[in-house]
Amino acid sequence: MSRSIITLTTDFGLKDPYVAEMKAVILSINPDAAIVDITHQIEKFNVRMGAYVLASAAAYFPKGTIHVAVVDPGVGTKRWPILIQTKKAFYIGPDNGVLALAAKNQGIEHIYEIRNRKFMMPKISNTFHGRDIFAPAAAHLSRGAQPADYGPEIRKIVTPKFVDAGQRGDVFVGEVLHVDDFGNIVTNFREEKLEALCVRDAVNVEIGRVRLKLKLCKAYAEVEKHKPLAIIGSHDFLEISINQGNASKTFNVKVGDKVKLCRS
Amino acid sequence: MSRSIITLTTDFGLKDPYVAEMKAVILSINPDAAIVDITHQIEKFNVRMGAYVLASAAAYFPKGTIHVAVVDPGVGTKRWPILIQTKKAFYIGPDNGVLALAAKNQGIEHIYEIRNRKFMMPKISNTFHGRDIFAPAAAHLSRGAQPADYGPEIRKIVTPKFVDAGQRGDVFVGEVLHVDDFGNIVTNFREEKLEALCVRDAVNVEIGRVRLKLKLCKAYAEVEKHKPLAIIGSHDFLEISINQGNASKTFNVKVGDKVKLCRS
Amino acid sequence: MSRSIITLTTDFGLKDPYVAEMKAVILSINPDAAIVDITHQIEKFNVRMGAYVLASAAAYFPKGTIHVAVVDPGVGTKRWPILIQTKKAFYIGPDNGVLALAAKNQGIEHIYEIRNRKFMMPKISNTFHGRDIFAPAAAHLSRGAQPADYGPEIRKIVTPKFVDAGQRGDVFVGEVLHVDDFGNIVTNFREEKLEALCVRDAVNVEIGRVRLKLKLCKAYAEVEKHKPLAIIGSHDFLEISINQGNASKTFNVKVGDKVKLCRS
Repeated sequence: MSRSIITLTTDFGLKDPYVAEMKAVILSINPDAAIVDITHQIEKFNVRMGAYVLASAAAYFPKGTIHVAVVDPGVGTKRWPILIQTKKAFYIGPDNGVLALAAKNQGIEHIYEIRNRKFMMPKISNTFHGRDIFAPAAAHLSRGAQPADYGPEIRKIVTPKFVDAGQRGDVFVGEVLHVDDFGNIVTNFREEKLEALCVRDAVNVEIGRVRLKLKLCKAYAEVEKHKPLAIIGSHDFLEISINQGNASKTFNVKVGDKVKLCRS
Repeated sequence: MSRSIITLTTDFGLKDPYVAEMKAVILSINPDAAIVDITHQIEKFNVRMGAYVLASAAAYFPKGTIHVAVVDPGVGTKRWPILIQTKKAFYIGPDNGVLALAAKNQGIEHIYEIRNRKFMMPKISNTFHGRDIFAPAAAHLSRGAQPADYGPEIRKIVTPKFVDAGQRGDVFVGEVLHVDDFGNIVTNFREEKLEALCVRDAVNVEIGRVRLKLKLCKAYAEVEKHKPLAIIGSHDFLEISINQGNASKTFNVKVGDKVKLCRS
Repeated sequence: MSRSIITLTTDFGLKDPYVAEMKAVILSINPDAAIVDITHQIEKFNVRMGAYVLASAAAYFPKGTIHVAVVDPGVGTKRWPILIQTKKAFYIGPDNGVLALAAKNQGIEHIYEIRNRKFMMPKISNTFHGRDIFAPAAAHLSRGAQPADYGPEIRKIVTPKFVDAGQRGDVFVGEVLHVDDFGNIVTNFREEKLEALCVRDAVNVEIGRVRLKLKLCKAYAEVEKHKPLAIIGSHDFLEISINQGNASKTFNVKVGDKVKLCRS
């Protein structure tokens, strides 16, 4: 499988030289690599958000893509740099959970600690393993380096907790998985579950301090402008939105908040 | 003509996986596509701003470029996805006006509704046609698909209103077309018109609540730091600026505000 | 040496068509150019910040890279567009200091004024030399144009002041060079100097209105969450940071502020 695409997911923001330095290192090793930014605007140190965004995007990349993710508050401590090989792709980053969700979704085949200095920069800083370890590891992999040559195979990795929504009596309890840039509130209620629950046309939602009876729509514009609605979003989760508005701000809801659904 | 460049213009912002998913879909279909971001920071749902920015940038891309624009508050409703072929380029997006200004500037040759499922993702979400319809449509086009195969040809598209400035007696009335990231106020007074009006050296401007006599400069630095000026901007419109300052904030002016020019 | 990579460093922000227009001009001249954004979020008109970020990133790009930087409050005035050839790379932009730090770090070989209209856009605006002069100059260079053909060789360029930290008695006086997106405070104390000073394990820092005794760490996580520390950052300067926090906001420190170090 082709390995020419390398993606980057970080919490670095865009004003500093950091992202460009990672790209420079990659292109110095493999001038033909196609580098695609997933995002550099993960909330600082928010490993869980990094894991969610990477997993969402990774599902659409072609076979053989190499994903590098650096949300790494523990840089320089004993968490190991790892390389995960799945049925479809490769993941490179710190072993703190940021890679785990995406990798598990695709079926993990092998996990290696990255210890081989051959695949690193000659000088390794204390604070920027994205540039000094992860970028060169990815670039060498894209040129055909063998995963098994990176270091010893390991069995276990750190995994962030993403729970599916559950049921308590007649009430279904979930949480806010993500709030997107539009203010759409992405919950962890999956489309399949909703069907089983037969709450298809309207849904009673308790979120933050509000209780809403929402129409389950197929388009935002099914309700009037600035009115709330429920909709199955583009990643097959139930979302609470406002037509041409910002649901997260309006309802003062953030990631991790509880969401309850009831039939009536 | 070569079709290897695909541009993206959206209101998605940069923190979510959405832009990367569009790129992943494109690269899965055509690994050789050169994807160029125009911007992902169109104001949410602001179709008019999307149309303006796309039209400005599109003028500079080489022949055969494929432009995808997704500012789409009506996603999932009956507005059709369309493909426009002009003398110079291709435009793909919703039929809500976001493509119209750029396409008209270049001379529209054909407009097609995109109905052919062959050029879409197998599963189409309700909320993300950028990824499921527009991105794959562009990628297939870049590989040589025929525009006429996308769907039935149509004659009319939705067009946002961009009026040229007009004259009332001795006063010339226009409006604010765009406010850029520097705070420069781009009006819809065209350079040619100004020449005809012979207001070349200084110009009386009424904008927001202020009336200013401004020097018509050839460089921001012709006036002192933090002083206002008028200048023909890089898209041949009259702009009101402040040397090393932010004119939009200083004069509290926003897109759509009226601008009047008088000779004295 | 290969000249296929062109980098861009500007204060344009990302919402306008400006960056895309530069890329469009480059790709129209050289469809094979690999364009890499360093950043477009230099603070408006902050030439010094542009110089710092460009110099930091440029060090990691491969030989032959062409760097274009446009932080240009004097656009349209008599500052000349210049092309600098160093031992390792090429630099194109206004002669206002934005290129100087990076170029000097690499050893300047030749400096040319860009006067040859052959390497510019046919029509040159007053306000956007990034698109009309610098982008086409870079694109032609990437296709093999000879630096000496751009215009007359010159000897002197404008250089921003970046001073190394100095010593006054037992106190070492430096300044804040950069504040990154994490809020890390990058000072101009170099790693080598620190070693000479033997303040290796702990350091007394006076910065803004605070005086701190900080552990000199090898990882942010060596101190508790939300506690301050000193660390040699990824560009070999002493940085003042807060583990998983924002040091710049916490200590109300900004670029240019004085920093003092004392042994006790």
